[in-house]
Amino acid sequence: MTRKHLVFALGLFYPNGEHVTSWRLPDARPERFLDFDYYRDLARTAERGRFAAIFLADELYVWDRFESGVESTVNERLEPFTLLGGLSQATEHIGLVATVSTTYNEPYHVARRLATLDHMSHGRAGWNLVTSASDEEAWNFGRDANLDHAVRYRRGGEFVEVVDRLLDSWDEGAVVADKASGRYADPAKVRPIHHHGEFFDVRGPLNISRSPQRRPALFQAGASEDGKNLAAATADAVFTLGSGTLDAAQDLYRDYKERVAVAGRDPESLAVMPMLAPVIGSTEAEARERADLILELTPDQVALDLLSHRLQTDLSGRDPDEIFTFDFLDEGTVQQSQSAYKAIQRLVEGRSLTLRQVYQAVAGRGFVVGTPEKIADRIEERFNGKAADGFILMAPSLPSGLADLVDHVVPLLTQRGIYPPEYAGATLRENLAGR
Amino acid sequence: MTRKHLVFALGLFYPNGEHVTSWRLPDARPERFLDFDYYRDLARTAERGRFAAIFLADELYVWDRFESGVESTVNERLEPFTLLGGLSQATEHIGLVATVSTTYNEPYHVARRLATLDHMSHGRAGWNLVTSASDEEAWNFGRDANLDHAVRYRRGGEFVEVVDRLLDSWDEGAVVADKASGRYADPAKVRPIHHHGEFFDVRGPLNISRSPQRRPALFQAGASEDGKNLAAATADAVFTLGSGTLDAAQDLYRDYKERVAVAGRDPESLAVMPMLAPVIGSTEAEARERADLILELTPDQVALDLLSHRLQTDLSGRDPDEIFTFDFLDEGTVQQSQSAYKAIQRLVEGRSLTLRQVYQAVAGRGFVVGTPEKIADRIEERFNGKAADGFILMAPSLPSGLADLVDHVVPLLTQRGIYPPEYAGATLRENLAGR
Repeated sequence: MTRKHLVFALGLFYPNGEHVTSWRLPDARPERFLDFDYYRDLARTAERGRFAAIFLADELYVWDRFESGVESTVNERLEPFTLLGGLSQATEHIGLVATVSTTYNEPYHVARRLATLDHMSHGRAGWNLVTSASDEEAWNFGRDANLDHAVRYRRGGEFVEVVDRLLDSWDEGAVVADKASGRYADPAKVRPIHHHGEFFDVRGPLNISRSPQRRPALFQAGASEDGKNLAAATADAVFTLGSGTLDAAQDLYRDYKERVAVAGRDPESLAVMPMLAPVIGSTEAEARERADLILELTPDQVALDLLSHRLQTDLSGRDPDEIFTFDFLDEGTVQQSQSAYKAIQRLVEGRSLTLRQVYQAVAGRGFVVGTPEKIADRIEERFNGKAADGFILMAPSLPSGLADLVDHVVPLLTQRGIYPPEYAGATLRENLAGR
Repeated sequence: MTRKHLVFALGLFYPNGEHVTSWRLPDARPERFLDFDYYRDLARTAERGRFAAIFLADELYVWDRFESGVESTVNERLEPFTLLGGLSQATEHIGLVATVSTTYNEPYHVARRLATLDHMSHGRAGWNLVTSASDEEAWNFGRDANLDHAVRYRRGGEFVEVVDRLLDSWDEGAVVADKASGRYADPAKVRPIHHHGEFFDVRGPLNISRSPQRRPALFQAGASEDGKNLAAATADAVFTLGSGTLDAAQDLYRDYKERVAVAGRDPESLAVMPMLAPVIGSTEAEARERADLILELTPDQVALDLLSHRLQTDLSGRDPDEIFTFDFLDEGTVQQSQSAYKAIQRLVEGRSLTLRQVYQAVAGRGFVVGTPEKIADRIEERFNGKAADGFILMAPSLPSGLADLVDHVVPLLTQRGIYPPEYAGATLRENLAGR
């Protein structure tokens, strides 16, 4: 079964969109970042564009290692499930994806929230598994430091298994609710799971019956070896970094599909979705001006501090005009996000860049800048070239960047026959299939 | 400051209401128990009656120790915060109270959900602290058995302290969001809490700024010594068992108010809210018939198994017509709910009852059966007699029992000048004050 249509998901990395300081853009509405209506409006715009999902990134700490972190960036987010519970009633078709840290949660709670959201939305729930990469998160949950990378992924894998078994602990038809006989459920169809593993001991059953999707759609972004293998074994969609050439994207796409086959699954069951951050203008020049503005709004100190954070090395006192040099560690020994680390290494390899330029290259790595036609061309090339099944759209400016995409790019893709003219299915999983 | 008006909260112990098998009643809608609209309709009816809050009880397990538990009772519930996120957008005035187990949660997650719900509802969030009384819950979270009663309450106390400090980690005015200067927040007003206690080590700050109530209203139901003291020190409302004489209720009311004063707080800051389960009929006979039907719908086996559960002794094979005898333990040695245990002891003291009669007395303990006038008289007596600041209304039949209350009892109380003719405030805490 091959994909007829590509799928879009709106990724909200920060409340203000993809970019760390885009809350400063003229159309940004920081006074609404904790208002439900702000997210309702974004979700409805995405739904007007027939996006398969809205995808809420999440972290469990305030980035205050550097003073600029609190001062210049947006360190607050509504909790995903509580917000998505509201959005489930304000939308009809779009999937609702909550980011979940498998390091700082319990599978029983998470399975239950997923089943709840899936019931409330009639089959539109999803989750994005992250293993949490920062020591700051550990400090909020009684630990001195984060778990090692490999341990985090083992825990993540076991977490998915337990959630899956809990979501399967009530059979189809377990609830009878026959008033006359007094039989509410069939005890033969409600089973403990008796899970005993390296990280979790969970008896079950879950205290909510099977939801419409049974297993809400699972997203992952892991790009390390551990991350790729976990995604290949368990995910419905994988969110990849979107930078790089067509060749590189095709290689990565093929790599994922092969791993899925090795894991014994149909390669079509995993949607490979690179990140794309479109900066749209009615002319190339206008689009370029917008992209430059987005990057220029980041104060130098924030740029240095973000690089320091990603490289786990204090560069905060350095001169942003200094040429960047760095002794990169072997990837396997990096304990936080290995893919973010490697992305910087790739960007600077063989180039002589100042610290500011390195930051801007990192910050703008998913940007595709141009007219709606140019953005549509890029999307079509990647979809037809088997480099992407769809895209996680991280609008660097909100709400305008999303509206431009829905109003000007989506119609072009629909005309070209590669974008769904209407929602194909009722559930998130159906809409991810691109039929 | 004395209370002018009493306050009501709708308590949803089971999706079907207060009583374990009331899902079998003619007007019960078990096919809607996992539909958002069912709860939306109940919340809107309660809001029509100017209830201060809707209060969602919660447990973290399926009661399958006895086969009748799965077969005859409702073992599924939507997760409270996800559901309340939806209700926050379907209502305008009513408070939204989620039950939280302090034994099986982390304070960082809970503080964040509370702040999220408080932002989304513009100040209507609340929580009901429980320490979780069943080993079954322990088994779903990697433990062999529940924590000892005293340890649970120590943990609960520390949990409240950590949540409170996290909710206080962003000062009023911390968010500046000044686009021109690039200053999003004032770092001097966003502080780590550096909590190091017996149960929790939490650095903070919380990743969401101060919400409208700052500290969402806190409900508790603990009736043990530990429970009462925790409520007196920290709660906005305490939910007590509603059975017993006026004298006994007055004593309990005074006991709570004195403990609040000892804790250094204004006694008015804690609303004492007994449980009340009104069974309303247009005549006494009709009401009595309804109450009998509710109790008769419980199969004997469920009655025996529920008694076994509450007494932690297997009575499941006994004859329901047998006279009940039991060697009650000293209260302090009971590890699960001490108050539920003691309630049974009180009910049977000096009486000769069959097992079925004991069950029915326990199950019907909060029932007040009669015409709207009789129910209103009972409520007025308790409010004017300083035995209650309001009531947690556990309708034994839903939705009719709630509608009867709102349509027939609330108007009488309003006429008598003891019930608010409109919502007094914008926040849950304001509405709990009874001004």
